[in-house]
Amino acid sequence: MAALRARTVLLTGSNRGIGLELVKQLLGGPRPPAWIFATCRDPEGPRAQELRDLASRHPNLVLVKLDVANPSAIADAAKIVEGKLNGAGLNLLINNAGIYAQVSLETVDSDEMIRTYKTNAVGPLLMAQTFLPLLKKAAQNSTEKGLSCSKAAIINISTVMGSIEKTPESFCKPVISYRCSKAALNMLTKCQALTYGEAGILCVALHPGWVKTDMGTQEADLTVDTSVRGLLSVLPVLSEKHSGNLLNWEGKVIPW
Amino acid sequence: MAALRARTVLLTGSNRGIGLELVKQLLGGPRPPAWIFATCRDPEGPRAQELRDLASRHPNLVLVKLDVANPSAIADAAKIVEGKLNGAGLNLLINNAGIYAQVSLETVDSDEMIRTYKTNAVGPLLMAQTFLPLLKKAAQNSTEKGLSCSKAAIINISTVMGSIEKTPESFCKPVISYRCSKAALNMLTKCQALTYGEAGILCVALHPGWVKTDMGTQEADLTVDTSVRGLLSVLPVLSEKHSGNLLNWEGKVIPW
Repeated sequence: MAALRARTVLLTGSNRGIGLELVKQLLGGPRPPAWIFATCRDPEGPRAQELRDLASRHPNLVLVKLDVANPSAIADAAKIVEGKLNGAGLNLLINNAGIYAQVSLETVDSDEMIRTYKTNAVGPLLMAQTFLPLLKKAAQNSTEKGLSCSKAAIINISTVMGSIEKTPESFCKPVISYRCSKAALNMLTKCQALTYGEAGILCVALHPGWVKTDMGTQEADLTVDTSVRGLLSVLPVLSEKHSGNLLNWEGKVIPW
Repeated sequence: MAALRARTVLLTGSNRGIGLELVKQLLGGPRPPAWIFATCRDPEGPRAQELRDLASRHPNLVLVKLDVANPSAIADAAKIVEGKLNGAGLNLLINNAGIYAQVSLETVDSDEMIRTYKTNAVGPLLMAQTFLPLLKKAAQNSTEKGLSCSKAAIINISTVMGSIEKTPESFCKPVISYRCSKAALNMLTKCQALTYGEAGILCVALHPGWVKTDMGTQEADLTVDTSVRGLLSVLPVLSEKHSGNLLNWEGKVIPW
């Protein structure tokens, strides 16, 4: 199995769940990145203790404060990352931050619809916009042909629950604001692939499975370890033929 | 060709473009509805003159002020409609109001993404929530088996540009906020079909084609007359097998 060779990685929502496990497995891999920028809303707060412990042991792990629902916070974070990179580009942007509320068509209101869209769809759009110069720089500095995560890539953590086709299979879960935001994120991924491909940037949406996290609850199918091992084994094999698609943690294409 | 037999119809965004033409053709059809509630943001304003002229000649046409981006305005409109219906239900809700901006991934900002989502996706959700009791009443009062537009239906006017699968074919148009909002509307339609089917309500998303309107510009393929004739010939043939799908003005299924 190919290992991920991205030298510089940034992820959002990295203080818990899938984000935190991605940080751990990236740090513990055979070729850890030169820099991992792990962002979350409150890196000084009690919910980021584990991330801070990791950072104290791994000098290549940099914690950055970032709320993806706040455009000026994204711009501030980009300046910090650019400074650290010191002329290098960003190989891999993982838009992992997301929110989820148990609301049905009957109970959801406008504010909840907007709040979830802002974090789950608009956030990834703004992240890619803001970090685009660093992603482009990584692509330009690479001698690799084609598209890959070791060259330059945007990975949007999506979900099968954003698949309209698959909705009947999971409709027992009343998460209308989440489903609509993730369908939009899937559309965004397709548009990003069509727009950024020319600049040498791969864009893929990934479904991590139903994972035992705060969001997924303990009833879920997969441990966070299994899901993240899957995701990290999919990343190195992604190429231009995958760009603009939604794949699961085993690399299988999910219909829209 | 079957004619539409819905006795009570409500449409949003009815002062121009496809909405206005729907009103005209519904009024001029072989069996015009007993009530057509034509809503728009400013029925007293200069842009609703044609609609007012129609209302002065057609006592079954009722103009109602309604901004789909304003939840309390939707509630106010529902009270007016309920009063006029005087115990009858609403057979057909056509969520036609929509906005569109020429913005690319590079130029779009958070406010534009939210503004378009609010009108194009959240508006139709709130409309269906608010008018649900009247739609349910229409379904209960009907002796028809199965689902149909003459019994009780929600029609969301969507677009092929909300199809993720079809995006590469139309990507010359930089309308990222519109595409994302319409992908979410398509997801909403699927969820509405799965939720409201039990209550006897059909839910379908329709693509009107690329139409010569203020939104579509004069470069478009179809006249508004042709598009609306198509839509009105599709509505009467819709049944439970179509619920939860996206169809075009000729009744052909569009992939998600």
